[in-house]
Amino acid sequence: MSESPVPHESPIYRRIADRLRARILSGELRDGDRLPGENALMAEYGIARATARQALAVLINEGLAVPRRGSGVYVRLFKPIRRHGSRRLAREQWGQGRSIWDADTHGRPFSVDEVEVTRERASEEVAGILESREVWVRRRRYSVDTRPVQLATSYFPAHLVDGSAITLVDTGPGGVYARLSDLGLSPVHFTEEVRARMPAPRECELLDLPGGTPVIVIERTAYTAAGRPIEVNEMVLDSAAYVLQYDFDA
Amino acid sequence: MSESPVPHESPIYRRIADRLRARILSGELRDGDRLPGENALMAEYGIARATARQALAVLINEGLAVPRRGSGVYVRLFKPIRRHGSRRLAREQWGQGRSIWDADTHGRPFSVDEVEVTRERASEEVAGILESREVWVRRRRYSVDTRPVQLATSYFPAHLVDGSAITLVDTGPGGVYARLSDLGLSPVHFTEEVRARMPAPRECELLDLPGGTPVIVIERTAYTAAGRPIEVNEMVLDSAAYVLQYDFDA
Repeated sequence: MSESPVPHESPIYRRIADRLRARILSGELRDGDRLPGENALMAEYGIARATARQALAVLINEGLAVPRRGSGVYVRLFKPIRRHGSRRLAREQWGQGRSIWDADTHGRPFSVDEVEVTRERASEEVAGILESREVWVRRRRYSVDTRPVQLATSYFPAHLVDGSAITLVDTGPGGVYARLSDLGLSPVHFTEEVRARMPAPRECELLDLPGGTPVIVIERTAYTAAGRPIEVNEMVLDSAAYVLQYDFDA
Repeated sequence: MSESPVPHESPIYRRIADRLRARILSGELRDGDRLPGENALMAEYGIARATARQALAVLINEGLAVPRRGSGVYVRLFKPIRRHGSRRLAREQWGQGRSIWDADTHGRPFSVDEVEVTRERASEEVAGILESREVWVRRRRYSVDTRPVQLATSYFPAHLVDGSAITLVDTGPGGVYARLSDLGLSPVHFTEEVRARMPAPRECELLDLPGGTPVIVIERTAYTAAGRPIEVNEMVLDSAAYVLQYDFDA
């Protein structure tokens, strides 16, 4: 339900936002176009600067526009990534050498950067889940259509993956799940915990988030058939770029 | 991952926030207690008003405290609700006359208010999903431990539920899912779409959200065994009050 019903007497900033939104969604204003500025809105509608700013803020918060310092507010259309909780982790995916990430992007160009692989002492929380004081940590950032959309940090029990390609930047076809499988540690059961919060300054910077954009935080634990926790993955997602989908039966 | 390490030379407002937090978490300050005000902090630490305000803002942003207009800042301890995506909708739940809500709250006191049941013309989107121009709409607000945590709006194809208890405020034991079952329309398959965004003003008001708190929006569609979409439920959750959990297999 993209839109909640607007009461007839909605405030003026909201009605202005509605008109600008309609111009974006109809295609009249396109990706990268500059929206009317505060001065133009003040003149057109006879409103105060604060009201013009509120109208633009609505579109920024909806992820439809992005402010550029000292330059104005620009249309930012981005087809949300539909992240399908269960289907993407199906064994057919990584078992055939495809990365899990392919399942999310459906052929859209994506890239991984800021990759960092280290062996570290685990936090209390991660040590508790993985039953291991030492962990291999894989940090990376994913971008889609050149836009950074997700930071991910995976933790593995060090003694179980030492010497494997999981400790290398390039993990080879199928990624870390295929490598866990090579080690007889196939992940077969998953738990995802989903939260939302405002981003930390460092997350704002790495995800290039405009003000007022929350992040979705997913903490996934992967288990082997024997029930051993084999990976914890903490993902921080730009909420304007994602829809998470989960399917299940009664 | 719960807490980032505080550098030794952390700013004064952060150290004050650390002390106040410790007093809350140790139980010295309890739920509903008033925190020291700006004036008290200024006198105690010899700091400026802006610094005192920053210290209190840290705790407000962490969800540990809540400002009340013109009265001060109060401790707000609240154990997050763990909402288990699949287990809560298991047939054993509503099939035995228990409400789905019981599964979330594990015996914590909860209440439902602002209940509104109307027959309406559906929005384009809902009409498209439910294959029906006319819908019954159930709006309500859930509170746990007296705190409002969720707004929910359910839509049902009007011609399928006209005359049933689904159109009444009190739907009887097991709630709407038990009544759908009575009609031979048991929901057996579910899709949930999860998003996060900043709240609209009306949502802030109904959920009593402090500034800077995002909402999680869940749009669930329920299907019968024959694959007929029978309900769309849009839920708006206070993100500080919820952890969503989803379990699935590879």
